[in-house]
Amino acid sequence: MVFFTEPSVTLVNNKIMTELKNDRFLRALLKQPVDMTPVWMMRQAGRYLPEYRATRKKAGDFLTLCKTPELATEVTLQPLDRFPLDAAILFSDILTIPDAMGLGLYFAEGEGPRFENPIRTKTDVEKLGVPDMHYDLGYVMNAVSMIRRELNGRVPLIGFSGSPWTLVTYMVEGGSSKDFHTCKGMLYEQPELMHKLLDVLARSVIAYLNAQIESGAQTVMIFDTWGGVLTTRDYKEFSLRYMQQIIDGIQRERDGRNVPVIIFSKGGCQWLEDQAKTGADALGLDWTLDIGLARARVGDKVALQGNMDPCVLYSSPERIRQEVAFILESYGKGSGHVFNLGHGIHQHVDPEHAKAFIEAVHELSQPYHQ
Amino acid sequence: MVFFTEPSVTLVNNKIMTELKNDRFLRALLKQPVDMTPVWMMRQAGRYLPEYRATRKKAGDFLTLCKTPELATEVTLQPLDRFPLDAAILFSDILTIPDAMGLGLYFAEGEGPRFENPIRTKTDVEKLGVPDMHYDLGYVMNAVSMIRRELNGRVPLIGFSGSPWTLVTYMVEGGSSKDFHTCKGMLYEQPELMHKLLDVLARSVIAYLNAQIESGAQTVMIFDTWGGVLTTRDYKEFSLRYMQQIIDGIQRERDGRNVPVIIFSKGGCQWLEDQAKTGADALGLDWTLDIGLARARVGDKVALQGNMDPCVLYSSPERIRQEVAFILESYGKGSGHVFNLGHGIHQHVDPEHAKAFIEAVHELSQPYHQ
Repeated sequence: MVFFTEPSVTLVNNKIMTELKNDRFLRALLKQPVDMTPVWMMRQAGRYLPEYRATRKKAGDFLTLCKTPELATEVTLQPLDRFPLDAAILFSDILTIPDAMGLGLYFAEGEGPRFENPIRTKTDVEKLGVPDMHYDLGYVMNAVSMIRRELNGRVPLIGFSGSPWTLVTYMVEGGSSKDFHTCKGMLYEQPELMHKLLDVLARSVIAYLNAQIESGAQTVMIFDTWGGVLTTRDYKEFSLRYMQQIIDGIQRERDGRNVPVIIFSKGGCQWLEDQAKTGADALGLDWTLDIGLARARVGDKVALQGNMDPCVLYSSPERIRQEVAFILESYGKGSGHVFNLGHGIHQHVDPEHAKAFIEAVHELSQPYHQ
Repeated sequence: MVFFTEPSVTLVNNKIMTELKNDRFLRALLKQPVDMTPVWMMRQAGRYLPEYRATRKKAGDFLTLCKTPELATEVTLQPLDRFPLDAAILFSDILTIPDAMGLGLYFAEGEGPRFENPIRTKTDVEKLGVPDMHYDLGYVMNAVSMIRRELNGRVPLIGFSGSPWTLVTYMVEGGSSKDFHTCKGMLYEQPELMHKLLDVLARSVIAYLNAQIESGAQTVMIFDTWGGVLTTRDYKEFSLRYMQQIIDGIQRERDGRNVPVIIFSKGGCQWLEDQAKTGADALGLDWTLDIGLARARVGDKVALQGNMDPCVLYSSPERIRQEVAFILESYGKGSGHVFNLGHGIHQHVDPEHAKAFIEAVHELSQPYHQ
């Protein structure tokens, strides 16, 4: 593990930051006209790329890869060197904040993330404080600055965080879960304690995303991966409410440019109208809702990001093009669409299929922007 | 494994079938007035009950339990002896049809269901035929007859099947799956082959449910456990279309009484309007949609079954009552609601909590039916 203790601001020098050569992605998030639909892929720096696997091997383990800014920068840029993507996304883990809070993140082989010290009691919750962004999480800020510098204006850089509710699921369960019964137990039986936990996380996420923006992130995304396991009432009270708090608390402008915010509740298409009221600029969509219907429901308020089933990338390039065409037609004319998968790209996808996907979006979307 | 080769009809004698003493459940499915909201629980005969675990131990393994009508009858009745439930559901496995087709169902310890012979090619699909309901699946029909006889009119008996799409996911993947990429691969690349497979399954499910109805099932439910992993377009084409075919093909009346049909696509609340057009009498709801909103969308066409988060049963009886009250209030006055969990009851739930849940539904729902 490598920690950088210098405040990340020393690495940022706005004067030498070059102009964006490709701002299609930022423009689409703000519903401004574009020449073609921008595209990126969740988990685009990942195991489906042989060069990623090589860097990961060099790092030794996943956490070292996340905590070494040079290596995080290297893997962040890899997909951009292969494909004409319209955005880069910080390579990091979703659980950096709880790790910085002292929960002891580790990865058990084949079992996903685990915490040495899960949060179960009032005493556990009361011990938690907002981590120091430039000491405890300095490695993230250094990676952001370094990536931004290396990008040199090619495309915008996305910063991100997990949503408070999503972080809670891992923190209380102690890792991944099938039915989330420990964290739902706290939610149902001790709602005040759950709110206390969510509040310290929301304040941490605000500080985290603001520090990423200060360090060079040009837009931020909040991943609410597990919002969709809640009832409607609980989604609003325990998940969306804290995303709202974050949206209200983060810096929305930097260097004279808007910093758009994207929120994405997987499995949450039934709550789009509520999500659109938060002030987020864009909503992520998984693949279960037709994007045309989503646009009809909320498209005058927000941009939409999504929504191809990642499994389509296992198909032939012809079938991939066909699916891209379906989704573009469903969204229809005009800006406000960022093409993406509805979930992270799977590790066994052929990179050539990812390439076919990205090229199809650029090629087939142009008539929709004339 | 025990097979009964006699046609199941020899075990059915309508003349000795007694009148239903409690038809609250059937009446609610048909939106007829009731005195209180009926309630049952998906997987109510299951591992959370010590008496179930004892019978399971006696059987030796899960498949023997399913394939021995006396044992299947025993576990079906166990929850009814404990709780004032308003319906019994045939104890069986969702994968009996593919097993009868020759796929070789087995259960690997801790890994869930597996097939020795998964379906991957055109040749595999072409070999499949509709199983003989009284030979290959005679053990199911015998269980249905025996349960119906043992119930002796206490409550109605629910027959069931997996939906064709849900059966396909297991048959093509060879077992459970995280991302369904093999069966989605067939869907995306070989849609005609997928349709051929779904069609033979739909015809099998029609024969299967009709045989269950002939053997004594008074209502049937189609479990579309994995419909919610599809895009809207694919859900309609590959899942809902075949449930429609089944609804059109099964017997809807028996012994002068309607045989109501319930369909349940987990994760499919965005498609309720389409589901309501199939002619199903009732739709199952998971817990992610507020039942009051669901009723406003489709409640003039169909009854609704659901929708409490099964994790609520880990809470205290007081909290369980509170959640029951929320859901009853959300649905509002009048018939057409069958209370249930939004998914099967979890194995670690205290049976006393299940009891508190069922009693709360009966007690708190009465004012809504006055």
